[in-house]
Amino acid sequence: MPDSASNSLALHTDLYQLTMLQAYEREGMHAPAVFSLFCRRLRDRNYLLACGLDTVLSYLEELHFSESDRAYLRSLDDFDDDFVDGLADFRFTGDVYAMPEGTPVFPDEPILEVVAPIGEAQLVETFLLNQISYQTAYASKAARVKHAATHDGTERLVADFGMRRMHGTDAPLKAARSGYIAGIDATSNVAAGKAYGLPVTGTMAHSYIEAHATEMDAFTAFADCYPDTVLLVDTYDTLDGVHRVVEMAEARGKDFQVRGIRLDSGDLGALAHKARSILDDAGLHDVDILVSGGLEEHAIADLVDQGAPIDGFGVGTKLGTIADQPYLDTAYKLSAYDGTPRMKLAPNKKNLVGRKQVVRTFDDQGTATGDVIAPADDLPDTGTPLLERVMHNGTRTDDAPSLDALRSRTQDALAALPPRLHALEETPAYPVTISGALQARTDATAERLRTEMAT
Amino acid sequence: MPDSASNSLALHTDLYQLTMLQAYEREGMHAPAVFSLFCRRLRDRNYLLACGLDTVLSYLEELHFSESDRAYLRSLDDFDDDFVDGLADFRFTGDVYAMPEGTPVFPDEPILEVVAPIGEAQLVETFLLNQISYQTAYASKAARVKHAATHDGTERLVADFGMRRMHGTDAPLKAARSGYIAGIDATSNVAAGKAYGLPVTGTMAHSYIEAHATEMDAFTAFADCYPDTVLLVDTYDTLDGVHRVVEMAEARGKDFQVRGIRLDSGDLGALAHKARSILDDAGLHDVDILVSGGLEEHAIADLVDQGAPIDGFGVGTKLGTIADQPYLDTAYKLSAYDGTPRMKLAPNKKNLVGRKQVVRTFDDQGTATGDVIAPADDLPDTGTPLLERVMHNGTRTDDAPSLDALRSRTQDALAALPPRLHALEETPAYPVTISGALQARTDATAERLRTEMAT
Repeated sequence: MPDSASNSLALHTDLYQLTMLQAYEREGMHAPAVFSLFCRRLRDRNYLLACGLDTVLSYLEELHFSESDRAYLRSLDDFDDDFVDGLADFRFTGDVYAMPEGTPVFPDEPILEVVAPIGEAQLVETFLLNQISYQTAYASKAARVKHAATHDGTERLVADFGMRRMHGTDAPLKAARSGYIAGIDATSNVAAGKAYGLPVTGTMAHSYIEAHATEMDAFTAFADCYPDTVLLVDTYDTLDGVHRVVEMAEARGKDFQVRGIRLDSGDLGALAHKARSILDDAGLHDVDILVSGGLEEHAIADLVDQGAPIDGFGVGTKLGTIADQPYLDTAYKLSAYDGTPRMKLAPNKKNLVGRKQVVRTFDDQGTATGDVIAPADDLPDTGTPLLERVMHNGTRTDDAPSLDALRSRTQDALAALPPRLHALEETPAYPVTISGALQARTDATAERLRTEMAT
Repeated sequence: MPDSASNSLALHTDLYQLTMLQAYEREGMHAPAVFSLFCRRLRDRNYLLACGLDTVLSYLEELHFSESDRAYLRSLDDFDDDFVDGLADFRFTGDVYAMPEGTPVFPDEPILEVVAPIGEAQLVETFLLNQISYQTAYASKAARVKHAATHDGTERLVADFGMRRMHGTDAPLKAARSGYIAGIDATSNVAAGKAYGLPVTGTMAHSYIEAHATEMDAFTAFADCYPDTVLLVDTYDTLDGVHRVVEMAEARGKDFQVRGIRLDSGDLGALAHKARSILDDAGLHDVDILVSGGLEEHAIADLVDQGAPIDGFGVGTKLGTIADQPYLDTAYKLSAYDGTPRMKLAPNKKNLVGRKQVVRTFDDQGTATGDVIAPADDLPDTGTPLLERVMHNGTRTDDAPSLDALRSRTQDALAALPPRLHALEETPAYPVTISGALQARTDATAERLRTEMAT
């Protein structure tokens, strides 16, 4: 079956990356280039969470053209045989500087920079944008969802149920991982559990209830199989379903271990209140109420603000497809070649030049007060640099951190943001300034290009 | 690297599918179930194009649990060893009835129905929804984009440039294929070209221009390498870039073979007019103008309506992420088990029961006049049935049709729709009715369930 399970990822790129690579080789252009990957602007977000770096570093380490990749390229008109033969030895040999996954990031700040022979740095653009854009967009929304679920200070579980409506098979894997870093507690995605060791979770489907002669038959059979399960109560009538759980508890006595019920339709807040009353009246205080169905951060925050007695949220489609902002305005721009700053002059598409660093400052309470984007070789006197060299000569400089370490570090970084940035609405922007030195180099580059163009 | 290239797709499912499978096995519930996959409603679409069936059939034929899948499941608390051992022999043994890919489909109409032992039919829900939902959503938008580009009756090429901002590595493959079926002409995605034999295309990036000392140096070098290339003219100043192409043409004389220019920023309509004048004044009537940058169907239709002299469109992010509607309200619902109709009674989530067929009628000119959803064993006297049996006992009944055959058939099916459905705005809905027999069976099922619930 032709899908992502092809034997290499080298062809997961745009054709022009390969035609440019061949052109650079013919021209003998092998000098180092600097490319910066950044987001131009935020829409309905007050921050982004950088994510996807681990995928990118694995890709860069393993990048090669398989025999069948080369056979395919030979079949096209664009490439000569010498070039394709040479791809057998192609490896990524460059350096990567990046923010750790889970770092809050703002417009124009490089999430990562690649320094490599220009053909190599160019070839990887498509994959890097593909993975960093999606994982960053997803993690950023996931952090909002988790915050909404807990913004009153009460911990509530959030589970990713979105696989069925995400785009293809790769997205749900990357979403489960980046969501976990951002604070999501578990995923229904078994492949992601296997791939990353994530907690997996799930309840039961309406079809299971419907396949049995009665709802009670279904509840009984499932609890026989999984004593501490969560029972789905809304297949026919939600409150009837809750009463049936109470009946089961009375019948089973001390053997009743059902952990929770799930509501998946109707007015979730009102039903959660009524369900809680029914359960509490029966002494079933330990039976949790989980809800799902069309949820995203605003609906979740409303339920929490209503005081709905909800212990956990299953969040699917609208998180999974990042439905309100399914893409970021990310770019991967050449900012230097062969030691000289480079930029585009097209309207609204200018970029900052050269190798850069982002420096974050904090107040005495540890709250971030602002960022400065500066030339990597000319940093401000104070502040914490955010980009680290994570790859040198094509090899990772460190082992990948554990997901739990990334998740924990991310929670700390989120807690250090100015509180207003956690609002679901847009708030006054976090202050990001461009250092005088960087602005001067960028302006000088634009001026040089305009002068050259005029002559 | 853990990504879609894992060794089987069996775990690309929600955990509850596996816990339900184990429960069904323990309960000895192996009777055949009927599940229907359909879309509940359209949002900003007048039709959908069914897509993704080939992916689904390949998955069903190859579905198995690898040794490492089983080792992972053993590591979880949910499954006993006998069950996991038995998964070594698991195969999909059911039947599938489906609309051919590229068939226009409307709300409540089954895109496909699965008839299989209930555990098997349940297990595959997540993958089937994941692939059919995305590919159908993408194909549906792609058809709008292609229609917008050609709605004045002039053929214009549309290329898929969206890989870099799609969600993960699998989506761009499936998008390229389903887009081609829907009418997109080519893709920049090399992996998709290799996987499906699709036409691949591309031009050059701004970075290539910027890496050279001057724009003219870059144009010259690239055209030396690819004489019939498309040159990107907006890196510094669009019209200056066009003049440079004219200079090159004058210098090269008969050796000038550049096929086109690409505009990627600014007011594309106005710039296309000016560029066309400059090219025509130089006698370069055969140099095409291609445009890209933030395009989707409305912007494309506006450019065409303005009479902008544009020969082709590169369409990226907003098509690639289906940005206006990144998910469909698809569902996969149990409609019969062990010969008895089944349904959910939850508000707004009722389903039609039993095995169904969709019958489409046409007028004398071959234009579709309406659809009837009917029981598969009780069809109306007239009309063309749309669902075909495509899998029997776990094996495809026919070889997969060629992509070109699907694309051609899709163009015919689109041409047979009432013309109003091609409007980009919502129009009066295409008439879909539920046959009296099907409504009666569905009502009787709801009545039976309500009666049983009340007792």
